[in-house]
Amino acid sequence: MKIQHPVYYGDYLQLPKILNAQAPESAKYGQVAHDETLFIIIHQTYELWFKQILHELESIRSLMIKPFLPSTDLAVINARLERITSIQQILIDQIQVMETMTSLDFMDFRDYLVPASGFQSLQFRLVEAFLGIKPQHRMEIERQFFNSRLKPEDKKILEEAEQKTSLLELLEAWLTRMPFSKFENFDFWGAYSGAVEKMLNNDFQIISTNPSLDEKQKALELKNLEATKETFATLLDETKFEALRTQGKIRLSQKAMLSAVFIHLYREYPALQMPYKILNNLVEIDEKFTTWRYRHAIMAQRILGTKIGTGGSSGHEYLKSTTERNRAFIDLFNLATFLIPKSSIPQLPHVIKGQLDIVYDFVQS
Amino acid sequence: MKIQHPVYYGDYLQLPKILNAQAPESAKYGQVAHDETLFIIIHQTYELWFKQILHELESIRSLMIKPFLPSTDLAVINARLERITSIQQILIDQIQVMETMTSLDFMDFRDYLVPASGFQSLQFRLVEAFLGIKPQHRMEIERQFFNSRLKPEDKKILEEAEQKTSLLELLEAWLTRMPFSKFENFDFWGAYSGAVEKMLNNDFQIISTNPSLDEKQKALELKNLEATKETFATLLDETKFEALRTQGKIRLSQKAMLSAVFIHLYREYPALQMPYKILNNLVEIDEKFTTWRYRHAIMAQRILGTKIGTGGSSGHEYLKSTTERNRAFIDLFNLATFLIPKSSIPQLPHVIKGQLDIVYDFVQS
Amino acid sequence: MKIQHPVYYGDYLQLPKILNAQAPESAKYGQVAHDETLFIIIHQTYELWFKQILHELESIRSLMIKPFLPSTDLAVINARLERITSIQQILIDQIQVMETMTSLDFMDFRDYLVPASGFQSLQFRLVEAFLGIKPQHRMEIERQFFNSRLKPEDKKILEEAEQKTSLLELLEAWLTRMPFSKFENFDFWGAYSGAVEKMLNNDFQIISTNPSLDEKQKALELKNLEATKETFATLLDETKFEALRTQGKIRLSQKAMLSAVFIHLYREYPALQMPYKILNNLVEIDEKFTTWRYRHAIMAQRILGTKIGTGGSSGHEYLKSTTERNRAFIDLFNLATFLIPKSSIPQLPHVIKGQLDIVYDFVQS
Amino acid sequence: MKIQHPVYYGDYLQLPKILNAQAPESAKYGQVAHDETLFIIIHQTYELWFKQILHELESIRSLMIKPFLPSTDLAVINARLERITSIQQILIDQIQVMETMTSLDFMDFRDYLVPASGFQSLQFRLVEAFLGIKPQHRMEIERQFFNSRLKPEDKKILEEAEQKTSLLELLEAWLTRMPFSKFENFDFWGAYSGAVEKMLNNDFQIISTNPSLDEKQKALELKNLEATKETFATLLDETKFEALRTQGKIRLSQKAMLSAVFIHLYREYPALQMPYKILNNLVEIDEKFTTWRYRHAIMAQRILGTKIGTGGSSGHEYLKSTTERNRAFIDLFNLATFLIPKSSIPQLPHVIKGQLDIVYDFVQS
Repeated sequence: MKIQHPVYYGDYLQLPKILNAQAPESAKYGQVAHDETLFIIIHQTYELWFKQILHELESIRSLMIKPFLPSTDLAVINARLERITSIQQILIDQIQVMETMTSLDFMDFRDYLVPASGFQSLQFRLVEAFLGIKPQHRMEIERQFFNSRLKPEDKKILEEAEQKTSLLELLEAWLTRMPFSKFENFDFWGAYSGAVEKMLNNDFQIISTNPSLDEKQKALELKNLEATKETFATLLDETKFEALRTQGKIRLSQKAMLSAVFIHLYREYPALQMPYKILNNLVEIDEKFTTWRYRHAIMAQRILGTKIGTGGSSGHEYLKSTTERNRAFIDLFNLATFLIPKSSIPQLPHVIKGQLDIVYDFVQS
Repeated sequence: MKIQHPVYYGDYLQLPKILNAQAPESAKYGQVAHDETLFIIIHQTYELWFKQILHELESIRSLMIKPFLPSTDLAVINARLERITSIQQILIDQIQVMETMTSLDFMDFRDYLVPASGFQSLQFRLVEAFLGIKPQHRMEIERQFFNSRLKPEDKKILEEAEQKTSLLELLEAWLTRMPFSKFENFDFWGAYSGAVEKMLNNDFQIISTNPSLDEKQKALELKNLEATKETFATLLDETKFEALRTQGKIRLSQKAMLSAVFIHLYREYPALQMPYKILNNLVEIDEKFTTWRYRHAIMAQRILGTKIGTGGSSGHEYLKSTTERNRAFIDLFNLATFLIPKSSIPQLPHVIKGQLDIVYDFVQS
Repeated sequence: MKIQHPVYYGDYLQLPKILNAQAPESAKYGQVAHDETLFIIIHQTYELWFKQILHELESIRSLMIKPFLPSTDLAVINARLERITSIQQILIDQIQVMETMTSLDFMDFRDYLVPASGFQSLQFRLVEAFLGIKPQHRMEIERQFFNSRLKPEDKKILEEAEQKTSLLELLEAWLTRMPFSKFENFDFWGAYSGAVEKMLNNDFQIISTNPSLDEKQKALELKNLEATKETFATLLDETKFEALRTQGKIRLSQKAMLSAVFIHLYREYPALQMPYKILNNLVEIDEKFTTWRYRHAIMAQRILGTKIGTGGSSGHEYLKSTTERNRAFIDLFNLATFLIPKSSIPQLPHVIKGQLDIVYDFVQS
Repeated sequence: MKIQHPVYYGDYLQLPKILNAQAPESAKYGQVAHDETLFIIIHQTYELWFKQILHELESIRSLMIKPFLPSTDLAVINARLERITSIQQILIDQIQVMETMTSLDFMDFRDYLVPASGFQSLQFRLVEAFLGIKPQHRMEIERQFFNSRLKPEDKKILEEAEQKTSLLELLEAWLTRMPFSKFENFDFWGAYSGAVEKMLNNDFQIISTNPSLDEKQKALELKNLEATKETFATLLDETKFEALRTQGKIRLSQKAMLSAVFIHLYREYPALQMPYKILNNLVEIDEKFTTWRYRHAIMAQRILGTKIGTGGSSGHEYLKSTTERNRAFIDLFNLATFLIPKSSIPQLPHVIKGQLDIVYDFVQS
């Protein structure tokens, strides 16, 4: 190879564009507010990272949308999911930089930004849509906001993104295709069901003989146990499961859910190591966005008190309420519900083990 | 000085005691669970850190309880508060180590620990009491837990700690003593009041002319503004303030609150630099415990699903509900509510400025 | 199961022992130094974490020492290595807590600790020995220190640990057993060798045509390139490789090294995903201890200036010099040297691919 | 205020410019490398943060360059220095995102970037110059690089920046102006000198009676002690001090250095609390850039092995050698050398104490 275009650092990164994109509003009103530059730059770095996250998600979609997912692609998908979580950690850490701006500093330019709002970040909405947040999962107030406050062209881009196959849907299709929910000649889920029963009976014993619970507490615990029992029953009963799904209480199909449980139980087999990591990283992505929203909400309250935000609304109250929502992979997050102690996990027949395993540690003849 | 007791690292740290204090319960049942050691050791490090936090809090109390607090002690107090936040960051970071233990790993020994529970950590309760959490600030379920599940001797120690003067009370006494709520020959709070009115009128203008709000939204925002107005009125009216306080909606006295607001507004004066840092670090301490509880709750749910914890109760639900509570310094956290833009802050008379200032940048004659 | 031993949190964690193991030396001289408690507690947490790291390493050794390593064990080993890196992050983060102690604070009790020294931490030395640091890899000054300053019983334990099979040796045995350095009917290393040559020729072109290098710089770069060429030649030539090894410049056997290179190149195949992660995590462990030593050295210099440490020696100078040493897995750290661009990586024959792959994404008939 | 320019989030942040500034070179060669986007975006965020750091430094300079520095400005300066350290933490943390790019991923586009290099980051060089790194403090290889590899216009900007008054020079002027190196009617430095002597005699005792040192070690320690003695003597002797300074071994003037020592010793007085924080944060800034360079060097070696970087040179070797250099505030970093135990610190006369103190904790009459 001959160098065809000698590259210069500043040109390659288009620094003249990047570094001339900070125009404080306060300057237009004749009172430059020192901290407005920080406010602009931190949001620009956020948007650059959102672009990178979308870049990773796009590539993952293009791999997962294929009708057959080669095993070597799994490692690539997983590495890119891990990169996303690594970027998210920076998003969270950056809040500490924002916190170096105090209330009084912010008040110096807050009024000039009206009615702009971080909720207008199109890219962040696209990330959410990509993961699997559909309009019906949003709060009414959020939907209203998008209607009234996003530019029509941005709203259109968001609506188109919401139409596309989300990562959750791709995951579900892949899990559903997996052959773990039914085996010939081996009633795995029957065996699992037996193990569950044994475990719940054990829990019943523990509660009943727990010397530190009084009668009222015992009754409460036993009621909880009954609920757990019902949850397991639902997992294994297609009709009940679909009923819950129709109510929106669960998003994955029963088959997909069963595959996910199977992967968790036998994750140490080579065939399931990478799938297990992928499931975990998807939960981690949800997790980190939730933490980011939470930390962001707290920071906003600390800076704003109960005052109105730049978007003209008491943003922190809203943010707080979203903390518990907007998780695309909530079903995976709750998956521990369906796990059973290692000692009770059914032994797989030799032939199935063989399919999940690879033997590569041998001295070559 | 002559070395009187030559010191050996391992003896000094009493390592034989420390490193022989890990006895997994699972071993007693004949099935050593590999991860139980991690579970023990991580909790032991938590307890060591709690001890250190108590050590710092004790020393701060002994300084603040004096009727007159010398200015040089403020730097010491602040440094120790900062150390506490620095330790708290480790408490939070350690959750990532705990998260290397999966559901299945935990199930290997969970049953053997019944009915122990992290809620039985006496030291953590002492820290809370020290900061200012009194029994009446706890949830009913928490109080019940202490009654039924703490050893009598531990309960007694906690109750005694709750009787002692808390850091919040010491802070209040100190803020109340401060001479900022009333000056001779200068009606500071009158000037402040005028600035507030101007700011609220400005907010009224912004809302009224905000082109992106429809009538319904405008009405909502104006209602919020009315509430903010009322909040300010309460700050300045002793009777209204005390009424709120009696209802438990605020904990600091009006005088203390006014001093805190004053410190925030004029924090750049030498006399107020350190008090400002102290107020901020107290909020930070609340903040970090809240984050720790939040992260801990999420981790518990991820490991337990909806299953019962070692204490026989669904700990994560409980933990979640405490996230929003147990802040001793909530009034300081909400203080931004009472701040006004820098340009509106009343100019102090020369004589008061002089009292807050130090002139030390000069060439000595 | 019936609860046989109801467990109480404080007893389970043996808190009476743990929380009564802090006896400041300064108290014995009648002048309690406030910060000595921090000094003791932070070192105790370090020692607890070292114990946990040793616990993980022990379990990894017991798995790897078996003549045949089942594939499912790889996931367990990797998870435990990841846990170690996660603990190491805490070790590093804790330095920030130590940094809340200033020079003046430390001087309050420094003299009382003579001649104790952090170098006397037996457990940390055991960790190093476990990973693969043998006496001959240590600096002369370090060896002397152990001779003169460790208690005889501690020295004996360390020497015994140095005799045992280290993780590096176990890794080498496992990599050597792997069948990747020679395939029947396929000259993989011949193909690799061709790819290397092509790459180096390309680098030659780039240097020669680089418009921004003057003649002197070009000559330097070309000399570097020549060295790289020689390095590759060494990798593929058993005699040369062993010569280097005898000189102590490399520690892994040639066969092990070739397997490691192979794993890196084809890490996306299911059979190699976990081995790849293991290699990476071993480098990460070295990495994090190096960072920890580095940060520790800087902190010591900041606190001590050029003064003598508690061990009577200028510890920071020593620490600084160890930063670059004591890496057990340096060969893996330098492995990037032997990688080639993805586009040049030889295509594997179908039959070998099959051995590395698993097909499990299919709709069951 | 009426909203004059309603602001939209995306326009305010100039996102069309920012988000369309990523043009991978690999695309021009017809082979889009997935990871090149990450490489571009991470460097763009670095440059945005460098811009913010320069913004803070500019504002600090404009405050410090005034002939008289009002005490209220100190709090502002300190807050901005703290913000810089908070941004630096992000710079360091981001290395973890870069590390998600493996050697093989980087090789996919490395060749296309020749001869660009991170050393061409003009802004980073400006930051260094701003802090106080002058051409004579750079390594020969670094100077050559700037001569041959920076665009003439960039080189000119850098040279101009190097002419301006650096933060180190501003600090020195301010410390020199401070009245602490000489008091009327009180020979502070005489008293200090006595305390030093007492401390060194004590150290002599400790070494002499240390039971674990053999004769050779003792001799070495005593030689070190002699050197320490000489160092103190130099501090207090203007001629010796200036001689060292002429040799480039120290950068601050003697008067400035004495003020810095005084500030450290009496930092708990209100007048010195903020100056102490400023000194510490300057060291912290040096510290964090050093850590950043170190971590960056390690990452580069891990990705590149011993291969040549995009700038055509083995960048990691170079980076490694810079780790120990390029500290503007090295004199402050080493300041612990000149501290003495709290118990030996000379008592200040009442009148001087009064000048350093503020009394504001009183019940108003």
